[in-house]
Amino acid sequence: MYRIIENGGICTPKGFLASGIKAGIKVSGNMDMALLHTEKAARCFAVSTTNKVKAAPVLYNNSVLEHAHFASAIVINSGNANACTGLQGYLDSEKMALMVEEGLELTPKSALVCSTGVIGKNLEMNKIEAGIPKLIQNLSPDASLDFAKAILTTDLTTKSLAAEIETKAGKIYIGGACKGSGMIHPNMATMLAFITTDIGLPIDFFAEFRANIDDSFNAITVDGDTSTNDTCIMLANGMSDIQYGDLSLSEQGEFRTALNLLMKELAKSIVRDGEGATKLIEIKVENAESRQDALKMARFIGTSNLAKCAMFGEDPNWGRILSSAGASGVNMVVEQTDLFFNDVQVLSKGTPLIIDKEILNAIVRQKEYVVTLVLNMGYASASAYTCDLSYDYVKINAEYTT
Amino acid sequence: MYRIIENGGICTPKGFLASGIKAGIKVSGNMDMALLHTEKAARCFAVSTTNKVKAAPVLYNNSVLEHAHFASAIVINSGNANACTGLQGYLDSEKMALMVEEGLELTPKSALVCSTGVIGKNLEMNKIEAGIPKLIQNLSPDASLDFAKAILTTDLTTKSLAAEIETKAGKIYIGGACKGSGMIHPNMATMLAFITTDIGLPIDFFAEFRANIDDSFNAITVDGDTSTNDTCIMLANGMSDIQYGDLSLSEQGEFRTALNLLMKELAKSIVRDGEGATKLIEIKVENAESRQDALKMARFIGTSNLAKCAMFGEDPNWGRILSSAGASGVNMVVEQTDLFFNDVQVLSKGTPLIIDKEILNAIVRQKEYVVTLVLNMGYASASAYTCDLSYDYVKINAEYTT
Repeated sequence: MYRIIENGGICTPKGFLASGIKAGIKVSGNMDMALLHTEKAARCFAVSTTNKVKAAPVLYNNSVLEHAHFASAIVINSGNANACTGLQGYLDSEKMALMVEEGLELTPKSALVCSTGVIGKNLEMNKIEAGIPKLIQNLSPDASLDFAKAILTTDLTTKSLAAEIETKAGKIYIGGACKGSGMIHPNMATMLAFITTDIGLPIDFFAEFRANIDDSFNAITVDGDTSTNDTCIMLANGMSDIQYGDLSLSEQGEFRTALNLLMKELAKSIVRDGEGATKLIEIKVENAESRQDALKMARFIGTSNLAKCAMFGEDPNWGRILSSAGASGVNMVVEQTDLFFNDVQVLSKGTPLIIDKEILNAIVRQKEYVVTLVLNMGYASASAYTCDLSYDYVKINAEYTT
Repeated sequence: MYRIIENGGICTPKGFLASGIKAGIKVSGNMDMALLHTEKAARCFAVSTTNKVKAAPVLYNNSVLEHAHFASAIVINSGNANACTGLQGYLDSEKMALMVEEGLELTPKSALVCSTGVIGKNLEMNKIEAGIPKLIQNLSPDASLDFAKAILTTDLTTKSLAAEIETKAGKIYIGGACKGSGMIHPNMATMLAFITTDIGLPIDFFAEFRANIDDSFNAITVDGDTSTNDTCIMLANGMSDIQYGDLSLSEQGEFRTALNLLMKELAKSIVRDGEGATKLIEIKVENAESRQDALKMARFIGTSNLAKCAMFGEDPNWGRILSSAGASGVNMVVEQTDLFFNDVQVLSKGTPLIIDKEILNAIVRQKEYVVTLVLNMGYASASAYTCDLSYDYVKINAEYTT
């Protein structure tokens, strides 16, 4: 049995401390440095951007995690992405990790680093170096919200959540916080997500974590751009004294379901807070030949500007959705395809049905709805989560100049 | 030696007749049917949409061209794409071809069909059937402009051009007309392009034609959506009495250059007239490992909403361009990469140069400029042509509801 803890966060699982402070990196004066620390070194799972242009902290973490699969701390700064900053950028990331390791008396290479913000500008290391001791000093089990605030760039809301799973052996907790690809100030970038849990996880749980990322953070799209800094890190410190392997199969299933749900909800909260977004739309592709096909098509439709403008205009424009599906490169046969807005079918085996326009209009006027494309080609399904494309998206991304 | 004939068009080459009429398909009452006819059957090269959702006329042409490589006529209607219209749609396309073949006393399967407009609505065949005799009646060698007008949907300008090539054997002409993916009314779709020439071309010239399409119509992007109807057809009727094989190698080169230029200029005119477009930007990728890589990256950057919003905002935002390049999936090494706005270098081997902001601002305020990314990975280059993403794009695609 599991339940979502709405006001929970990164520190809800046992043994996790966090902090968030104002280091003076952001012009706004908002909090811009955060620290996450686990009292016991945690099994670490990490997935980072596939962009060939990788920011210094991404390169640094990759090099650390090549040799170690445990971590005790993650230090984050917002306001500057430390991307396209050459060797100096890499040395700066390394320095941040080193200062945290020394300050917390950790073993070498047990701290990770994330940055988010402006591209192409070196970090003001005097501010960072002054911030780290303060972060350490402020560490607290009650700072989930401070942490969630300090990692934001131009997001309008914090994104934080926790889950509790009851097992025979006791309670397990999962916590999470993330920030979106708000890019109000040009060159801003990055989706960052952090997941904590007090269960002990085996190293081969990575496959499950990876699959969950495809289901959640990889399934969302605001504008189709993959940033230089995107990172999702999960820390499992085992401090509940419960090991995954000790759970019954059904309890393991509960844990996986809770983790999947938590990651999906965090991901959806990024879309809801997408630049200029007024709606959250799930694009579901069912009965595709493979899960990859389903995901590819769902994501492709989710990034179609034409479809996204129609969503903003509250127009039940199935033609654009079908055309975008066909352009995705995924195998489909129009004469076999069904299409739904929520439960209302608009296309049956490729033939348009005659639907009362008002019924469809009522659906697309909602804040959240589901578009389902049934390919009838196989047995695989997947969803993508997207927002509409509004005037504000253009405004945000055109008017604020560097 | 070749020259561009600005006021030339589809009928400039010898033996081509055209017409454009009002058949009452468009609510606006504008011209909505066009016919192209060559007095002598022409070698036909055609490339159509890769979208899995293909409109009826695309399916019809594909089936005709599987067996024949000659055509004598192309009949076009605008205002209705005849897409997602099932068997009836296919029969309607067939009927259109048949009526043209009968009316012009052509051999069976020598007329092709194109449609552009609303998706998911069957053609009003009574209007089409009344239009075809009128089209035939109006055929004229002076109707290039009528033809160019009648194929438009929501384009703001006609797109028509011709070229003259002087050879020792005499003059050869190439003509062209196209329409863009103006999608002001939702569900509108389609890029259509028609090229005529009075030279005789061998069947294996198709490879050259295909390469030119990659350079021109496949290199442009307004919003990244591939429609259900996109088609480019070239007719070579040989009525200049000059065969390609008779030309000297340098004359063949001139012909190819003129054809490439004409197709590129037609393609660029589509971008200039893109929905809400205020600028035409060439994204040039140089020294990539392969031409495919260069084209893939250039097109990827050209469809980045973030980059396109920055162009609209007249912001020389090289960070977004570099990040988009990295996300394209093409092999690159940041530390080897140079970036230019026109002739002004902003990035040298991955390191930002200190540039007077006013110099860059002056460039991005221009109506047309070039962004060049030099990868220094190999010897291949390619360009994509894109427009900016403006409020009007969103307005056009959101506010006009079905």
